[in-house]
Amino acid sequence: MIAAYQEALKAFKEDEVPVGCVIVKDDKIIARAHNRKEKKNCAIYHAEIECMIKAARKLNNWNMTGCDLYVTLEPCMMCTGAIVNSRIDNIVFGCRDPKGGALVSNVEFKRIEGLNHYPGIEGGVMEEECSQILKTFFRNKR
Amino acid sequence: MIAAYQEALKAFKEDEVPVGCVIVKDDKIIARAHNRKEKKNCAIYHAEIECMIKAARKLNNWNMTGCDLYVTLEPCMMCTGAIVNSRIDNIVFGCRDPKGGALVSNVEFKRIEGLNHYPGIEGGVMEEECSQILKTFFRNKR
Repeated sequence: MIAAYQEALKAFKEDEVPVGCVIVKDDKIIARAHNRKEKKNCAIYHAEIECMIKAARKLNNWNMTGCDLYVTLEPCMMCTGAIVNSRIDNIVFGCRDPKGGALVSNVEFKRIEGLNHYPGIEGGVMEEECSQILKTFFRNKR
Repeated sequence: MIAAYQEALKAFKEDEVPVGCVIVKDDKIIARAHNRKEKKNCAIYHAEIECMIKAARKLNNWNMTGCDLYVTLEPCMMCTGAIVNSRIDNIVFGCRDPKGGALVSNVEFKRIEGLNHYPGIEGGVMEEECSQILKTFFRNKR
């Protein structure tokens, strides 16, 4: 999560909502990304999506069984769906997103039935830091 | 939907699950795409995602207010989330996806509360054609 947080710091410096993500396989980080929605001017480029695109390229495989995804903010519906589609083993997130979070906050992912794949979910890792950087970002925006 | 179906035909010819998508603004098609998951070896590249990436580039805007998205198959959770994030006005789909559909089938999108945006939803347009091309594809795979 430290590496994901470092990615969030990059987003902060680029004036993007500070969310960072890494994907780990066999104890090694295989992809790193941060939110680039504003730079790309496209709502698809959340940290998780770009990280999965990079990881798939590296693995040369859409199927990320054996990989874990670390992200500083609870994923939204788009990113949660992409994680399911990519068959990622586990999601570890920093702080919750009460409004858009699709794992435990706004949508309770585990209550959706009939999906192809259910990753493990762990939240609250480096919660204070991951939350604080977002608060600072939005305070500066006001 | 005819144009979206033509995109699905392209996917079929490329041995991809035949799903096609177009985005329309002011009665003009501004982006076309088809599923390229296998070619890109990445589960992110559903027809809808690539179509939204293309449309955002064309509009130079992540916010697709005023745009409608036509897709031959009911979108999955990832694509539905991306449509919400991109603020697309309306989704028109061909046939339902009983297993992965996140609008009306497996997930009932309208019952999720608290999202930033709720696009209009219309299903069943060219349903028979959109369904048949998928059936033929999967029959050939057996």
